[in-house]
Amino acid sequence: MVYQKIIRLETRGRGSYPITRALQEVVQESGVQTGLCHAFLQHTSASLMLCENADPDVRSDLERFMYRLVPDGDGIFAHVAEGPDDMPAHVRSILTHSDITLPVSNGGCSLGTWQGVYLWEHRLAGHRRQITVTICG
Amino acid sequence: MVYQKIIRLETRGRGSYPITRALQEVVQESGVQTGLCHAFLQHTSASLMLCENADPDVRSDLERFMYRLVPDGDGIFAHVAEGPDDMPAHVRSILTHSDITLPVSNGGCSLGTWQGVYLWEHRLAGHRRQITVTICG
Amino acid sequence: MVYQKIIRLETRGRGSYPITRALQEVVQESGVQTGLCHAFLQHTSASLMLCENADPDVRSDLERFMYRLVPDGDGIFAHVAEGPDDMPAHVRSILTHSDITLPVSNGGCSLGTWQGVYLWEHRLAGHRRQITVTICG
Repeated sequence: MVYQKIIRLETRGRGSYPITRALQEVVQESGVQTGLCHAFLQHTSASLMLCENADPDVRSDLERFMYRLVPDGDGIFAHVAEGPDDMPAHVRSILTHSDITLPVSNGGCSLGTWQGVYLWEHRLAGHRRQITVTICG
Repeated sequence: MVYQKIIRLETRGRGSYPITRALQEVVQESGVQTGLCHAFLQHTSASLMLCENADPDVRSDLERFMYRLVPDGDGIFAHVAEGPDDMPAHVRSILTHSDITLPVSNGGCSLGTWQGVYLWEHRLAGHRRQITVTICG
Repeated sequence: MVYQKIIRLETRGRGSYPITRALQEVVQESGVQTGLCHAFLQHTSASLMLCENADPDVRSDLERFMYRLVPDGDGIFAHVAEGPDDMPAHVRSILTHSDITLPVSNGGCSLGTWQGVYLWEHRLAGHRRQITVTICG
């Protein structure tokens, strides 16, 4: 059994946006009890992230770490036509994840207690983002 | 057909622990001949890793590389309540993988000759870790 | 329904090689309309990459970024028997992806407008690479 749905999200610029609840809703709609929930981000300048969900400092620390690792306006980049944050956004995307697969158990995504799923926007400006969710079971 | 099982592992602190055999056993139990084997780690301070399985130096080199990239006690981190190795563990998790999907062929995980699957513990202390394995086929 | 096929590719050394079309062909052969397309690279010194597909500078910038992050011949590595580019290739593999899952919609991989799938060869010399593609639906 396969169920597929598109989730749309409008970001307000760089930062992380929780999507765990939206994924759980798709799993419930599908009626699948045991199987897999696959989420796929249709963009190359944002990521899907599994992250600690309790202390918001974790996500701001991640942001700071990524900024140090891949600074905006880094002089080694030739792809600068779309702004100083565009190529760093592509690198962040490659170093993290565009697709995540979660186990489905008892009709819901089976996450650990401290795990949340986030859309991580890497561009400075807000963007419309689209995630295709596929449930198999 | 979907088969799901939880693997539990007690780590002895930072380092990598082979789980290829445990995954192969779940595939055999499932009876699936052709399909997918999905492993999901229910934690945000350890990783699942596909790595060269012949020379142990590869994994100690990886450990050393990661330590240089994300040092314990890094001054840019605000999330320090759980110790100097906790936020680095979250960063390592984001930069690597919490879930891995392997092809199942002829009733087993179809890995390359030099590929092994490891649980990579990022915390300095030992932890109880739980992996949900889902076989579809 | 599960369909599985092996794609073989001979690289000409470090760099990225498009495989989107090859994946789309496997999906079409499978006849699956809605489901998942999983690609798994059977090697630990190359990656599968989802990347911006329009400006080739993006991929050369990524190469340059990775070279700075994980330089060939880095003195911290002990695993040097197979050459100065071998251990960096393993690190690049761990920091990126060996397996990618794409949604299948309307009988094809449902990629974003600017997304392409690439095999990223990390070794300096050309290598024969094998990708197992599994379609579920």
